[in-house]
Amino acid sequence: MTASTAANATRSRLLDTALKLFCEHGVEGTSLQMIADELGVTKAAVYYYFKTKDEIAEAVAAPTLHELEQIIEAARTKPSRAAQIDHALSGFVALIVRQRLLLGLYNSDPGIRRVVNRSFAAPRGEDLRTRMRTVLAGDNPGLGDAITVHVVFTGLAIAGGAPEYASVDDDTLRHHLLAVGRRLLGELRPKRR
Amino acid sequence: MTASTAANATRSRLLDTALKLFCEHGVEGTSLQMIADELGVTKAAVYYYFKTKDEIAEAVAAPTLHELEQIIEAARTKPSRAAQIDHALSGFVALIVRQRLLLGLYNSDPGIRRVVNRSFAAPRGEDLRTRMRTVLAGDNPGLGDAITVHVVFTGLAIAGGAPEYASVDDDTLRHHLLAVGRRLLGELRPKRR
Repeated sequence: MTASTAANATRSRLLDTALKLFCEHGVEGTSLQMIADELGVTKAAVYYYFKTKDEIAEAVAAPTLHELEQIIEAARTKPSRAAQIDHALSGFVALIVRQRLLLGLYNSDPGIRRVVNRSFAAPRGEDLRTRMRTVLAGDNPGLGDAITVHVVFTGLAIAGGAPEYASVDDDTLRHHLLAVGRRLLGELRPKRR
Repeated sequence: MTASTAANATRSRLLDTALKLFCEHGVEGTSLQMIADELGVTKAAVYYYFKTKDEIAEAVAAPTLHELEQIIEAARTKPSRAAQIDHALSGFVALIVRQRLLLGLYNSDPGIRRVVNRSFAAPRGEDLRTRMRTVLAGDNPGLGDAITVHVVFTGLAIAGGAPEYASVDDDTLRHHLLAVGRRLLGELRPKRR
């Protein structure tokens, strides 16, 4: 293992630990010292990677936001509206299921919302929402389609991160979320002529 | 006007003013003094009705929670599952549209979430969620139906309170939210034999 991959592994373990502690105590209730203690390192070792707790919270959420952007970009390259919708929806649902701890935290903890909403603010956040809506509902969608996409987007993310489904296995949860999404978004495909 | 109806009118005007200021400045950023100033009364006059800002925030949200309970109770008395679902969904959507300022606040402001989640905590809140799910998906619903109800319930409430639809008139917003809800919940009705 090179020094750089060792550092990456430590950074990644630090973020996993931070997410676990954020879920247990909230972002506000978690200190850098608690993260260091849980990792079995000194606070100085944590400081080597991150100067503030907000930086850690941002780094915990960043890969998921980045992945969402990649899903949307990949969906845009698909040749038909139906294929674009399928790719965006299945990618979005897979991401929700994989990141449900983070989503559950986002849905319940003001601390992480504050940090994510800041790094997800306009223009980047607005742009991402607009691009997601465009992939799912087309350019300049009617109000009904825009609202449908809004309900799907937020409803799936909140239901997927809900603690009552924590014991449901990934495949089963993904199956049910996809079914709900398809039932709603199937209506958005251009009608056959 | 009797002294009691005058007091009720003042209390109600106080809550409207508080909601408006909460939306502009957040619950944390609003003081009793600001509410008094906006109403053109003294802080002592506000104290006559409410001792703390949390009490005001609770009172702002309470009628909506109470109305939601009434919608569910009324839906339970309907003779068929289809009629129960229709009543619960249309009542829920009408409530969302009527209270979209409050919902928008709930979706964006940690201060009001803290207060509502506390007064909406188990057993009352859990009970309300369970009763809503039972009306929409029946007793002991399968996982797929429970997730569908979850997506509808949260997706409609969040989309309905979203600032981007603030300029949409009530009838139009209600029409589109109902259409989305019916598309999903129509699947939950018992199949014809």
